[in-house]
Amino acid sequence: MKKLPAKSDFPVRQVRRYLEPGPIVLVSSSWQGKTNIMTLGWHTILEFSPSLVGLMISGGNHSHQMIRDSGECVINLPTTALTDQVVGIGNCSGAEVDKFAKFALTAQDAEKVKAPLIGECHANFECRLHDDALVERYNFFIFEVVKAHVAVRPKHPETLHYTGDGVFMVSGKIVSRRSLFRPWML
Amino acid sequence: MKKLPAKSDFPVRQVRRYLEPGPIVLVSSSWQGKTNIMTLGWHTILEFSPSLVGLMISGGNHSHQMIRDSGECVINLPTTALTDQVVGIGNCSGAEVDKFAKFALTAQDAEKVKAPLIGECHANFECRLHDDALVERYNFFIFEVVKAHVAVRPKHPETLHYTGDGVFMVSGKIVSRRSLFRPWML
Repeated sequence: MKKLPAKSDFPVRQVRRYLEPGPIVLVSSSWQGKTNIMTLGWHTILEFSPSLVGLMISGGNHSHQMIRDSGECVINLPTTALTDQVVGIGNCSGAEVDKFAKFALTAQDAEKVKAPLIGECHANFECRLHDDALVERYNFFIFEVVKAHVAVRPKHPETLHYTGDGVFMVSGKIVSRRSLFRPWML
Repeated sequence: MKKLPAKSDFPVRQVRRYLEPGPIVLVSSSWQGKTNIMTLGWHTILEFSPSLVGLMISGGNHSHQMIRDSGECVINLPTTALTDQVVGIGNCSGAEVDKFAKFALTAQDAEKVKAPLIGECHANFECRLHDDALVERYNFFIFEVVKAHVAVRPKHPETLHYTGDGVFMVSGKIVSRRSLFRPWML
């Protein structure tokens, strides 16, 4: 049996710790008994509290309408261990395949939304739609992170950052300049 | 005399190459004869063409009103060579200091906007305000990149990705999965 990372609750106002570095993420959704996963690189933190995140989910994705209809999703953070799944998920459509089955990923129950957590990911952020003002014009959804789960270790996982053209940058090495920050900037 | 990276024009519809990985950026602005620079990590690509980028520029930043009034900015991409400048710029205010002078950075004329390019940065993206619909509510500005300049080398510079708490992740290592992509996904 596959061993999934043990996770603990994480403060939603601190999700920038994982999302501000700009990793590629896997967005899971659920609607009318079906689930789906998409690979997404176009996102930004918007506010600490409420914990707001903006995602550009193109209308060409099968997930778009599922997320629109359900008003929910989970943002899952894959590490480099999942590189091939990240690429595979981004290169097929949920209209044709069950991605949890095809990529042997574990759907776990979320606490506050119906969309499933991906057990293999380092972190899972449960999201509810907060503002759809820019969905028509830009496919830009503003979500509130209502619950966060983060793996207990490693503290600094290697993450993937997409550049286009099938090429990713890898982040993992850490540089601290904490001593140079003014206390209220931390 | 300091040697600045030689740059060439870069297609604006491909700026995701540099911004989608989520690096910390330096945003420069100009208004009524004064310039300023801010450090920013909350941004996302929104569209290829027109080349749209969304930036969350908090109202607490001196740059906010300058960018609001001028409707312009330049997004500059620093590499790890500029780590201390990135931190220093984020920890003082343009209301009090001239950041180009304080951090010994070179202001170069942009081609299509009045905001200056930062010569030491790896890339410079000249931006014009495209949509301010979410500025009041979320300080979220949607810009169009109207001109892009990118250093000829290195091809894969090390960039900084902020996690909060004074800590950055460093990206630079490259992983290609190009062969696994469907052609129209590239």
